[in-house]
Amino acid sequence: MNGVQPAAAASGVALFGATGYAGREAARLIATHPAFRLAAVFGGPERVGLPLAAIHPALRGLTDARCEALPENGRAGALAGDLAARGVRFALLATPEAASMRMAPPLIAAGLRVVDLSGAFRLDGPDAFADWYGADHEAPALFDHAVYGLAEWRRAAIAAADLVANPGCYPTAALLAILPLRRAGLIDSAAPVVVHAVSGVSGAGRRLREDLLFCEVEGSVRPYGLPRHRHLAEIARLADLAPGDGLIFIPHLAPFDRGLIGSVSLRLAPGAGPIEIAAAFAAAYAGAPFVRALGDGPLPSTGDVRGTNTCALGWTAVPGGRHLVVHAVIDNLIKGAAGQAVQNLNLMAGRPEDEGLPR
Amino acid sequence: MNGVQPAAAASGVALFGATGYAGREAARLIATHPAFRLAAVFGGPERVGLPLAAIHPALRGLTDARCEALPENGRAGALAGDLAARGVRFALLATPEAASMRMAPPLIAAGLRVVDLSGAFRLDGPDAFADWYGADHEAPALFDHAVYGLAEWRRAAIAAADLVANPGCYPTAALLAILPLRRAGLIDSAAPVVVHAVSGVSGAGRRLREDLLFCEVEGSVRPYGLPRHRHLAEIARLADLAPGDGLIFIPHLAPFDRGLIGSVSLRLAPGAGPIEIAAAFAAAYAGAPFVRALGDGPLPSTGDVRGTNTCALGWTAVPGGRHLVVHAVIDNLIKGAAGQAVQNLNLMAGRPEDEGLPR
Amino acid sequence: MNGVQPAAAASGVALFGATGYAGREAARLIATHPAFRLAAVFGGPERVGLPLAAIHPALRGLTDARCEALPENGRAGALAGDLAARGVRFALLATPEAASMRMAPPLIAAGLRVVDLSGAFRLDGPDAFADWYGADHEAPALFDHAVYGLAEWRRAAIAAADLVANPGCYPTAALLAILPLRRAGLIDSAAPVVVHAVSGVSGAGRRLREDLLFCEVEGSVRPYGLPRHRHLAEIARLADLAPGDGLIFIPHLAPFDRGLIGSVSLRLAPGAGPIEIAAAFAAAYAGAPFVRALGDGPLPSTGDVRGTNTCALGWTAVPGGRHLVVHAVIDNLIKGAAGQAVQNLNLMAGRPEDEGLPR
Amino acid sequence: MNGVQPAAAASGVALFGATGYAGREAARLIATHPAFRLAAVFGGPERVGLPLAAIHPALRGLTDARCEALPENGRAGALAGDLAARGVRFALLATPEAASMRMAPPLIAAGLRVVDLSGAFRLDGPDAFADWYGADHEAPALFDHAVYGLAEWRRAAIAAADLVANPGCYPTAALLAILPLRRAGLIDSAAPVVVHAVSGVSGAGRRLREDLLFCEVEGSVRPYGLPRHRHLAEIARLADLAPGDGLIFIPHLAPFDRGLIGSVSLRLAPGAGPIEIAAAFAAAYAGAPFVRALGDGPLPSTGDVRGTNTCALGWTAVPGGRHLVVHAVIDNLIKGAAGQAVQNLNLMAGRPEDEGLPR
Repeated sequence: MNGVQPAAAASGVALFGATGYAGREAARLIATHPAFRLAAVFGGPERVGLPLAAIHPALRGLTDARCEALPENGRAGALAGDLAARGVRFALLATPEAASMRMAPPLIAAGLRVVDLSGAFRLDGPDAFADWYGADHEAPALFDHAVYGLAEWRRAAIAAADLVANPGCYPTAALLAILPLRRAGLIDSAAPVVVHAVSGVSGAGRRLREDLLFCEVEGSVRPYGLPRHRHLAEIARLADLAPGDGLIFIPHLAPFDRGLIGSVSLRLAPGAGPIEIAAAFAAAYAGAPFVRALGDGPLPSTGDVRGTNTCALGWTAVPGGRHLVVHAVIDNLIKGAAGQAVQNLNLMAGRPEDEGLPR
Repeated sequence: MNGVQPAAAASGVALFGATGYAGREAARLIATHPAFRLAAVFGGPERVGLPLAAIHPALRGLTDARCEALPENGRAGALAGDLAARGVRFALLATPEAASMRMAPPLIAAGLRVVDLSGAFRLDGPDAFADWYGADHEAPALFDHAVYGLAEWRRAAIAAADLVANPGCYPTAALLAILPLRRAGLIDSAAPVVVHAVSGVSGAGRRLREDLLFCEVEGSVRPYGLPRHRHLAEIARLADLAPGDGLIFIPHLAPFDRGLIGSVSLRLAPGAGPIEIAAAFAAAYAGAPFVRALGDGPLPSTGDVRGTNTCALGWTAVPGGRHLVVHAVIDNLIKGAAGQAVQNLNLMAGRPEDEGLPR
Repeated sequence: MNGVQPAAAASGVALFGATGYAGREAARLIATHPAFRLAAVFGGPERVGLPLAAIHPALRGLTDARCEALPENGRAGALAGDLAARGVRFALLATPEAASMRMAPPLIAAGLRVVDLSGAFRLDGPDAFADWYGADHEAPALFDHAVYGLAEWRRAAIAAADLVANPGCYPTAALLAILPLRRAGLIDSAAPVVVHAVSGVSGAGRRLREDLLFCEVEGSVRPYGLPRHRHLAEIARLADLAPGDGLIFIPHLAPFDRGLIGSVSLRLAPGAGPIEIAAAFAAAYAGAPFVRALGDGPLPSTGDVRGTNTCALGWTAVPGGRHLVVHAVIDNLIKGAAGQAVQNLNLMAGRPEDEGLPR
Repeated sequence: MNGVQPAAAASGVALFGATGYAGREAARLIATHPAFRLAAVFGGPERVGLPLAAIHPALRGLTDARCEALPENGRAGALAGDLAARGVRFALLATPEAASMRMAPPLIAAGLRVVDLSGAFRLDGPDAFADWYGADHEAPALFDHAVYGLAEWRRAAIAAADLVANPGCYPTAALLAILPLRRAGLIDSAAPVVVHAVSGVSGAGRRLREDLLFCEVEGSVRPYGLPRHRHLAEIARLADLAPGDGLIFIPHLAPFDRGLIGSVSLRLAPGAGPIEIAAAFAAAYAGAPFVRALGDGPLPSTGDVRGTNTCALGWTAVPGGRHLVVHAVIDNLIKGAAGQAVQNLNLMAGRPEDEGLPR
C-alpha cells in the first residue's frame, strides 16, 4: 500500500491519544509526511490491538499501525525508554491534560521531544493551571521547558524546545488576529477586546455526550463555556490582556463538523489607521506559509480553509473609525490542532515549516 | 379541509409577498389564526394563479388561496379600494422595500391597516433610509404614521397605528437583549456595545444566489454584510447608540435553516450588579408572553425556540465584573418576521397578544 | 401557563419512556390534546424528579410534569393499580421491548388500555419474537390481545383493543405503500418487493453511541441493519411476503434529524395498469385523514410532511410497464411513532381520528 | 507558491468548464499532479478574466490560471489549433452536453486527446442520445472514437483512445457493483436488478435552481429524475440489461454536499454462492488501485471515501439465499467525475493509474 513504507531516514513519531479526531488527523499527517514515520500509536484500553485504520476508516491504506495501550502508572518510564531505544525521537500527545502530565516527564527524560496538544502546559504555571483547569498540576517542573507553540510567533524557541505546548483551537485563531495589532501597539485597551467565536462540533472531541448527538446539534447554534472557558485564560496570557475586563471570549457551537471562526472587535489606538493596520499584519506574517492575510474588505469563510493548515485573516474598519473587526478562520483539527503540531515538529526537526502540510 | 373555513367573524388579511420564507410562515399563521382569515395573497408574476399550497407544500390543507399578481404602477390604488370593498381590514407586506413603499400609501388611503416586514419604514426618515438603503424613499410622508413594531416595547402605539414597521430579525434579538439595560441606565457607553450574531440561512431569503446554494453553505460559517449592514442602523436608532463607535454589529451565516442568536457584550455602568440586571429584565418583560428570561447562567440555544414566537434571553457576568454578555435567541422566521407581524396584528385588532402564536 | 390546565373531562394518559425523542413527541401531543391529559411520565433512573420540560426544552410551557421512576421488578403491579385508582385510563409505552413486556401485563390487568411503541407485540408470537429480537418473550399471553396499530387498515380492531402494537417507523411507510396493491392483488410476487429506505437520525433514538455523534453522521450516508433488520420481519408479516425471497429491506441513515422515505419497487401482476393502481390507493385511503396520495408523477419529499402525522404517497410506472415504484414519506417521530400512537388513542377513546394531530 | 511551477516535462491539459464543482476538483487534481499541468481553463462568459482561485477559494495557491472564454461558434477550430500549437496534449471537458459536442470534434481534429465528463458520448449512438437527452446529437461521427471510461473495465481501450466518455456518477457506483457479477454470469435476470441510490447535492451541479437552495435541501430527502433518469440508460447499456424490466433505477437527493451510494439488489443465478460471489469481485478488481472490496458483511459509508478516488464495495446475502444486496460508495466529484477523469488521463498518458489521485 502507498505510504506504508516511509523513507528509511524518516524520524519516528509516537502518537499518544490516536483515537479522537485530532489524533486521527495527526496520524494521517504523520503517516503521509516525507520526513516522519508513525512509529507507534497509543489509545484507550477499549481500542488496544485494533488497527488504527479500523478505528478511523479514513486512514485505510495509509498506516498499518495497531493501537497500543497507554501505560499504567509506573510503567510510563519503561515505555519511554523502550521508544527511545527503538529510535523514536518525537512524541505527539493528543491526550487529555491528565495523561499529558503523566507522560511528558518520562518521555522527555528518555530524550524524546514532545508536542502536547492538551492544555497542560499552555498557561503560566501550576497556579494558573489549577485556577482554570480545576486540578493540581502533576508535572510543574516542566513549565520551565514548555514553549507555547504558536509557530508564527515563536519559531526559534520552538526549534530548540523539548516540550511544545500546542495552542488551543480558539487561541490559534484569536491570537493570529490579535497579536500583530497588539505587538505593534495599535490596540487601545480602554475598551475590551471581544472575541466571538463559532466552532464546528469536532472541537468538542469524540466524546459520548448527549449534547453532541447529531439530533441535538443539527439545526441549532448555541453558546457554551461561559464565563470561564479555559481558552480565555490562554488567549489573555499570550495577548497580555486581563481576562474579563480586557478580553471577553464568547464561544459558540454550530452544526458543521470542522472549522472555526474567531471574530474579534477591538478599539484602535490613536493614529492606528488602515496603513498601520495593514503594515502590522504584513510585518507579522511576511514569509509565513500558513497565514493568508486578505486585507481590508474580503471576509473569510471557514470553508475556504477546510482541510488545510492555513489561517485566513480579513479585517474591516467599523463606521466611525475608532474600532476594527478582525476575522480569523482555521480548520480546528488542522491549524487548530494536528496540523499546527506537525508544523511544530517540522521546526523542531529542522525541516521546512510547511513540509507535509496542506495549504 | 381543516382550517379552510374560518369563523365568519374573522378579519380579512391581505398578504403581499407570499412566496418567500417569511411569507410562507405568515400565510400559515394567518390561515390557522382564530381571529384572522387569509383573504388574498399576492406574489411575483411567475407564480400568479398557482395555489399557495403548491408553492409551499407545508401549507397543504391549510389554505386554498391562489397567488394573485402584485399590481402594476398606477393600479395599486384600485386594488387597495377593491380589498377595502371586500372587507379586508389588514395588509401584511412581506415584500422588498421598493414594493412596500409603493403599496403602503394606497392601502392606508383605502383604510387598511398595514404591517410592513421590509425595512422601508424602520429608520428615522427618508434621509436615513437613503443613507443605509442606497435609494430614494418613495413614500416619505408615511414616516409620520410608522410605529416601530417591537411589540414588547410599544404595545399602545402599535394598537393605535395604521402602519407598523415590523422589526428586522437581528434587531428583534439584539434590542430585546439591550433595551432593558439601556433604558434602566445600566450600560456604560464608554465602551461600544458589541452585537455578534449568527443566523440560519433562511434569513437571507429565498433568493437564487450562488452563495445560498446548499453546497456553498454546508459545512462552513462566514461573516457578511460588514461594515454597514442595514440592521446596524436599525439597532442603533432604537437603542440610541452611535453606529460604529457606540454599537458594533457583526452578523454571520451558518449552516442551519432557521434560528438566530444575538450575543451582546457590553460594559456595565457603575452600580449595575446582578440584582439590578435581573430587575431590569424582570420589569421590562413582566407579562410579556413571548420573552423567556432564563437569568444568569443558563445559555439559550436557537433550537429551544424553533418554530415559536418566543425570544429566550440568558446573561452571564464576565470575569472582572465590569462587563456583561447577553444572549438572545429567536426563530428568525417567526419572532424575527412573520410571528412578530401577527403579534402586532393581534395588538392592532384588539386580540390577545399571543392568540394564534406558538410558544 | 398555557395548556397546563386541560379540560376536566380529558382522559388521563400515563407515558412510560418519556426521555427519548418519540417520548418527547408523545408528551407534546398529549399535553396539547383536547381530549387527553398527561397524567404521569416515567423515565430512566438518572432523570427521576426532573421536570419533563427541563429534559426537553421544547416542552416548556406545555407541561409541568416531573419524571417518575420506572417501577422495579415486582412493583409494576402496584404502580398500575395506583394509576387506575387515579383515573388514568391509557398507558403509552415508549420504552424498549424489555420494559414494555414487563409493564404491559400489570397495566392491562389493572384495566388500563395500552399502546406500545416497542417491537414487543408486533410479530406473530413468541417464537417470531425470539427469532428476530434474540430474546425470550416475557409476556407471551398478551399476543392474543395485541392488535397491530396501523390505523388506516385496522380501525375497528384498534377501537376495541386493550393492547395496540404501534407499528415501527419503516413498516408504517412501507406498508402504507404496499398494502393497497397487495390486498388488491396487483403485485406479482415472482419478483421480490424491494423496500429501500432512508431515515433521519432520530430513528436510531437518543442513545449515546459513537456512530450517532454529529461528526460521525454529518456529510455521509450509510446502510445499516442488514441482512436481518427487525422491521423486515414486521413488514413481511403484515404484507404476507417471505422475508428475503419475497421482500428485501435495505435501510439507510442520512444526515437529517427527522423524516423517513420508503422507496418500494415491485412487479405488477398482469392486468395491473395505471387505472387499477390509482383505484387501489383511492379505495384504501378514502376518508383517511393522514394519507395524501399524490398519484402518478409527483414525487414526495420528507420535508413536505415534517412535523405532521401525514404519509404522502407517490408512484411512478417504470419503463417497460411491468414494474412500479412507490414512494412513501413520513415524519418518523410523528406518523412513524408518537403521532400514530395518538391516532390509535383517538380511535380507542372514540374521538375523531385526527383530533389533536397536525396535518 | 507551491504547485504553481510544475515540472517542465508535465503534459499540458486544457480544462473546459472550470467553474462548476467537477471542474473545481479537476483543476485541483491537475494542478497538483506530478505529470500534468493546467495549461488553460475555460468557463462561462460571466467569469472570463477572473483568476480561477477567485472563483474557487479552495484553489488559492495551487494555480494562477485565469478563466478564458469558451469559443463562440466557428471559433472552436482556431482555439483547438492554438492549444495544439502551445503543446497542449489533452482536453478535459467538464461542460454540458451541448458544449462537449461542439468542442470535441475540433479538439480531436487538432490532435488533442479528450476526456468528456458530459453524457454526450456515453450511449450507443445518436439515436439513443436523442431518445434519452431529448436533443439531436451534433457530433455523431465521434461515437466511433468514444471509449466508455470506466477505467477498471477498459484499461487498454482507454490507453489508446482519443475520446473517452467519462462515466456518470451513478453509473460509476452501480456498474462497479454489478459488472463483476454480471460478467461472471451470477445474476438471474428473471427479476430486475434494482439500483437505489442516494447522492449528495453537488451531484446536481452548481446551478441556480430554487430546489438546490440550502433551505430547500436541509433536513429532507427526496427522490427525483423518475422514471427516465439519463443514467438509467447508461447503466443499462453497460450492464446489458433492459431499462425498466431488467433494470430499475431510483435516485434520491439527501442533505450532504458530496458522496454517493448505490444500493443494488439482484437475484442470484443458480449456483451463485458466497464463494462464487467473492471470487467474482476478487477477479474483477485484482490490482485495481481504487476499488476496495470489503466483502460480505461490512457496510460502507460515503464518508469513508470522501475526498478520494476510491470506490468501496460491500455485499450482503439476503435471507433465503436467492438474492444479494451490493453497496457501492464513491465521492461523486472524485471517482464519480474529476478523479476518474484524471485516472483516465493517467492511462492515456502512460502514467501509473493512481498517480496524483488520493485514496
